[in-house]
Amino acid sequence: MPLKKKFRLISAHARHEPQRPEVFAHSAGPDFEITEIKLESGAVSIESAFDEVLSSPGIVARAIEAEHEGMHAVIIDCMGDPGLYAAREAVNIPVLGPGEISMHVAAMLGHQFSVVTVMDRLRPILENHARVYGVFDKLASVRAVEMPVLDIDDHLDELTRRLIEESVQSVRHDKADVIVLGCTGFMGCADAIAAGLAAQGLHVPVIDPIPTAILIGGALVDAKLSHSPRCYPAVPRKPMIGFHAVPASKT
Amino acid sequence: MPLKKKFRLISAHARHEPQRPEVFAHSAGPDFEITEIKLESGAVSIESAFDEVLSSPGIVARAIEAEHEGMHAVIIDCMGDPGLYAAREAVNIPVLGPGEISMHVAAMLGHQFSVVTVMDRLRPILENHARVYGVFDKLASVRAVEMPVLDIDDHLDELTRRLIEESVQSVRHDKADVIVLGCTGFMGCADAIAAGLAAQGLHVPVIDPIPTAILIGGALVDAKLSHSPRCYPAVPRKPMIGFHAVPASKT
Amino acid sequence: MPLKKKFRLISAHARHEPQRPEVFAHSAGPDFEITEIKLESGAVSIESAFDEVLSSPGIVARAIEAEHEGMHAVIIDCMGDPGLYAAREAVNIPVLGPGEISMHVAAMLGHQFSVVTVMDRLRPILENHARVYGVFDKLASVRAVEMPVLDIDDHLDELTRRLIEESVQSVRHDKADVIVLGCTGFMGCADAIAAGLAAQGLHVPVIDPIPTAILIGGALVDAKLSHSPRCYPAVPRKPMIGFHAVPASKT
Amino acid sequence: MPLKKKFRLISAHARHEPQRPEVFAHSAGPDFEITEIKLESGAVSIESAFDEVLSSPGIVARAIEAEHEGMHAVIIDCMGDPGLYAAREAVNIPVLGPGEISMHVAAMLGHQFSVVTVMDRLRPILENHARVYGVFDKLASVRAVEMPVLDIDDHLDELTRRLIEESVQSVRHDKADVIVLGCTGFMGCADAIAAGLAAQGLHVPVIDPIPTAILIGGALVDAKLSHSPRCYPAVPRKPMIGFHAVPASKT
Amino acid sequence: MPLKKKFRLISAHARHEPQRPEVFAHSAGPDFEITEIKLESGAVSIESAFDEVLSSPGIVARAIEAEHEGMHAVIIDCMGDPGLYAAREAVNIPVLGPGEISMHVAAMLGHQFSVVTVMDRLRPILENHARVYGVFDKLASVRAVEMPVLDIDDHLDELTRRLIEESVQSVRHDKADVIVLGCTGFMGCADAIAAGLAAQGLHVPVIDPIPTAILIGGALVDAKLSHSPRCYPAVPRKPMIGFHAVPASKT
Amino acid sequence: MPLKKKFRLISAHARHEPQRPEVFAHSAGPDFEITEIKLESGAVSIESAFDEVLSSPGIVARAIEAEHEGMHAVIIDCMGDPGLYAAREAVNIPVLGPGEISMHVAAMLGHQFSVVTVMDRLRPILENHARVYGVFDKLASVRAVEMPVLDIDDHLDELTRRLIEESVQSVRHDKADVIVLGCTGFMGCADAIAAGLAAQGLHVPVIDPIPTAILIGGALVDAKLSHSPRCYPAVPRKPMIGFHAVPASKT
Repeated sequence: MPLKKKFRLISAHARHEPQRPEVFAHSAGPDFEITEIKLESGAVSIESAFDEVLSSPGIVARAIEAEHEGMHAVIIDCMGDPGLYAAREAVNIPVLGPGEISMHVAAMLGHQFSVVTVMDRLRPILENHARVYGVFDKLASVRAVEMPVLDIDDHLDELTRRLIEESVQSVRHDKADVIVLGCTGFMGCADAIAAGLAAQGLHVPVIDPIPTAILIGGALVDAKLSHSPRCYPAVPRKPMIGFHAVPASKT
Repeated sequence: MPLKKKFRLISAHARHEPQRPEVFAHSAGPDFEITEIKLESGAVSIESAFDEVLSSPGIVARAIEAEHEGMHAVIIDCMGDPGLYAAREAVNIPVLGPGEISMHVAAMLGHQFSVVTVMDRLRPILENHARVYGVFDKLASVRAVEMPVLDIDDHLDELTRRLIEESVQSVRHDKADVIVLGCTGFMGCADAIAAGLAAQGLHVPVIDPIPTAILIGGALVDAKLSHSPRCYPAVPRKPMIGFHAVPASKT
Repeated sequence: MPLKKKFRLISAHARHEPQRPEVFAHSAGPDFEITEIKLESGAVSIESAFDEVLSSPGIVARAIEAEHEGMHAVIIDCMGDPGLYAAREAVNIPVLGPGEISMHVAAMLGHQFSVVTVMDRLRPILENHARVYGVFDKLASVRAVEMPVLDIDDHLDELTRRLIEESVQSVRHDKADVIVLGCTGFMGCADAIAAGLAAQGLHVPVIDPIPTAILIGGALVDAKLSHSPRCYPAVPRKPMIGFHAVPASKT
Repeated sequence: MPLKKKFRLISAHARHEPQRPEVFAHSAGPDFEITEIKLESGAVSIESAFDEVLSSPGIVARAIEAEHEGMHAVIIDCMGDPGLYAAREAVNIPVLGPGEISMHVAAMLGHQFSVVTVMDRLRPILENHARVYGVFDKLASVRAVEMPVLDIDDHLDELTRRLIEESVQSVRHDKADVIVLGCTGFMGCADAIAAGLAAQGLHVPVIDPIPTAILIGGALVDAKLSHSPRCYPAVPRKPMIGFHAVPASKT
Repeated sequence: MPLKKKFRLISAHARHEPQRPEVFAHSAGPDFEITEIKLESGAVSIESAFDEVLSSPGIVARAIEAEHEGMHAVIIDCMGDPGLYAAREAVNIPVLGPGEISMHVAAMLGHQFSVVTVMDRLRPILENHARVYGVFDKLASVRAVEMPVLDIDDHLDELTRRLIEESVQSVRHDKADVIVLGCTGFMGCADAIAAGLAAQGLHVPVIDPIPTAILIGGALVDAKLSHSPRCYPAVPRKPMIGFHAVPASKT
Repeated sequence: MPLKKKFRLISAHARHEPQRPEVFAHSAGPDFEITEIKLESGAVSIESAFDEVLSSPGIVARAIEAEHEGMHAVIIDCMGDPGLYAAREAVNIPVLGPGEISMHVAAMLGHQFSVVTVMDRLRPILENHARVYGVFDKLASVRAVEMPVLDIDDHLDELTRRLIEESVQSVRHDKADVIVLGCTGFMGCADAIAAGLAAQGLHVPVIDPIPTAILIGGALVDAKLSHSPRCYPAVPRKPMIGFHAVPASKT
């Protein structure tokens, strides 16, 4: 019987309690053993380059810690994939960005995809990511519901309504064939959005980034594939000031 | 206990016997039940647009048959992904192209990747695929060992030597961070190539397309994701001449 | 006196009778001797990747036959250019795709062009062709009249009205400077569309793909130019199953 | 019997005598009546942006004159296509640039093409043209024989030798499938270059820009197609100082 | 005390009197000594490729003259940058195009920028410039107020109103983060447009091309940087007819 | 008399002493009053994504501090521009990245440019920056001298030798027209490299990023231009954990 795949979810949001362990377990299935960890510093939600910069050092530290603890892979719980490349330089196990994975999966499922996110201010950031990830040609649009992350939990109905509205616009106006949920805080909304689209005669896959990242990450682990040490080489040993807690584990 | 994922591998090569069922089973793991089927007509190997055109109708017919038989997904066993989009129009289950999947996985693992294939004549075809799949910006190069598919089985040592040689050139000269094996007939060579690269100090992931396609395909099935009906809409009912055996199953 | 240029038009549609010989003769002029041939199998109209896959083997076979019969060039009568690259591997004479030729001519006549086709489902296919043909930067949009090919003959007035409407939108909204008719079944409509556009003050060239392909093809024949054997190399001799009728003629 | 197509070749080089009327007549065939005209001012050869700027006003003036005199089309005799867009604003008849036409024809004949020109200093200019013409993705390379235009006539053997050498490099090193002669002064060399390439086992089409432009231009005239008035609108009437001899004829 | 930077502004418009010396002096500050010169021939306003071709030889001649007279840099006073590359081949001092500089500055200030110009007929020209300058990916749109250059002075209020309107559309509809004034005749309007945008809650930088070109040009002069002689090599000495007054000064 | 422009240079390297104040003062000229500040935490040199992530929070904090202290602009002293976009969200004054500015200036000075940096591991990072900054089409290559930042001071002769060698290769092999020094630690080497290139007959501008960024930044300040609040909107007020010292100053 195969061992369970041990995945560490690093919440980019500096909140006080792990959020949704049972949800992750459900969506990932019995092959995975998923733990979640929060950051000790940073913004309580990530919706700007500023927030990403503050959370990135902690994310890298948590990735190193996860590798030390025997995890098979780590997932950065934020569509902005903060610290993704830096963490890859620091560890050998796969570091999975839900933004990167969702966009590539979307590119495989349709001619073009749209990302529907929280705030329009993330549009430039996500468009730049699509360029760097190499899938910009498949990006139909980035749209936003204009609801801050911290408001999501208290306005789920309004959120769902707006997500359906922007998804419909993405398909009708921007010619998207696939919708990518543009915030990991939208987890669990995919079915409702797909139903809302279908109610208007629009049948398109809706990608929920965290479950997708877990499952694709599992496939990579099974295939014994991780990021290339050629472009994510180990961090050289040299003096560091104020970050004694971040020793790179990569060899 | 979860049911096994039933995958149908459609060999694009019109050979007389299924080839490597035990190999597929091994690389895919116990979660999969994999069956393989050959075409009844077409070229015995696929290494040109001509060969692809001849094999594509049969591939589409086999995909429809597989859906009828309750398969969870089909994989086209050829890096040229012949008939990929047509089959997606004909069935609802995921139709997986090892070329498309390998290129997207490679794009996620490194800054740039190279494809090392059988014949240089496939270079334009694979470059065009990279454009259509949306990952051309990540493609460092397409290189070839200049060995026809039908010669592979009898010259495995020579093949491995040349694959290592072209892979080294891809990394050193073309700046590839990841190697994609550019023919599904190379299955099983990835470890030897990675070792050959490592012996020259070059540590890069080497992607074996069929096992990778099976595992990523499994993740898509678990995530309940398939290609978008918006860009792969069902084939309309209309008179067809000479293809009575190809009734589209999609609804 | 120069010999007539003998061109073979291969109808991608598997219909029972040649369609419009006298029309082709008229639009091509006295320098051409044009024959038309239908396929023996395939869909009766081409409006999907599925249809293209079914018609492609027959198109390649007809191209080989045409070269054997001394034709100077063959034209694939379908804007999707099914089998174009495969046929070029099989014969030495120019194989002309009205899609490819129309897009390049349109790119030379204006800053941007739009293609107005039958069904929106062809948009991804035509956009991908524009990428592969290298003229995507000049493509303003692909629009559709949403009328299946088989309905065209019975609804010519409605067709013309919709073609004008979408052409006007292409020019006004998408900033197209040139209109390409996106279905060879639209042959003969170009003047009416140009007139309809002019009636709204929009003066743009409208390209009728088949006459344009014949005339540009004639220029290539006169210039003694054909596709490059480097990227369309001859098909190697090897066993083929079920396609004895398709012996490649290329040397 | 169809009337002859009257084409005016505008030599961008300010030389004293028309150059090669009988050559043009031969390569174009009996359907054309070709006249050639020189500029009254400008550089004696065009091999820089500076030269192009000096010749462009005269080229536009000659294009207007040609239209007044009943020509069916004008061809700018220079691969840099100086004054191409300005002339199109000034006249209704097709204004043909051998650079633009050759690149598009090359793009249709192969996966990639190279341009082999006189001086490396033209490389940025020709690469920029490929971008503006929309075919940059098909451009394998621009190479140069480093021989000034004025030296060509006295060093034809050396020229041919170098053209073959750079063409071989284009095919072998840059992966070109088609060669475009990058100077209209190379007219007549195409067969020798193709033979030189074939002697090394490289079979690729070699495009001679002026004959190709004449024949493709003839096809456009027969198809009743010219550049779009949307992006090349007529020049508005307004005061002009020092160019009384250049009244735009376009309506 | 540092010497003043002597800049020569070459008006592309063939008008009779220098226009706005005191304005230039004010916007540039005390570090600059700016002189302005008009052309002796050409169109009185530049709003087409035709106009640009007529003004370019004079612009090059004035650039050479300016270098002879000891200027530190020349600026071509037209957003179309006519003669830019030719002038760079002719002189060693920086030749500054307000179009090129404004687009690059805009690209540095925001994710995307729009250019708002006089006439829509300049859109293809400016889009092509964005491609050649290498910043097309940052161009959100080119919009026009549809007011000919010669009408500007008499309709300043109407002009400002329309500029604000198109700028608002650029930000709201085209997602521009920065506005570039697309005609040097709009000089002085930037503050009013920024205020008009702010009145609608849209806070974006508005770039006034001539002052920006002067100041960036001053920075280049202070940094001792000028265009590269590799891609703008000196014009070779050879016979020229009718341009005795244009001896290249570059060595 | 105009006030001096007060610029704050934020050293991305967590070193103990400010480095080169007199050098900055000299290269910037008397119009500037430049102060330098080090980070309190981070790596002592920046040559990886990992290093950048660790230094970015401190850079943002220093940018906010600089704005509070009345600076006119801040410059991030590192070619990787760490924290650039985050800092722009946090302050209103221009935040200047020497990487971004050098690439845009290089794009204006030549057809293509190369960046010559410390380590090849920075190549993917700098290529990605070129994509995001919108100038990838102008990037000929990124080359490296393979000398860690900390070794520079002790091996200046060797460094200069290697910089010249790679610059020569950039010009000869990669067709660069301009060289950008790819590490701010190379400051002061530009003249030696230009001389080394000239000794081999290669005359190209060599851009020294920090002096160039200071001078271009001065021009932006004089033009009253800063980054757009549309794509770099102010950071919303919300709980932050562990970063009390980083209050955004932007309004």
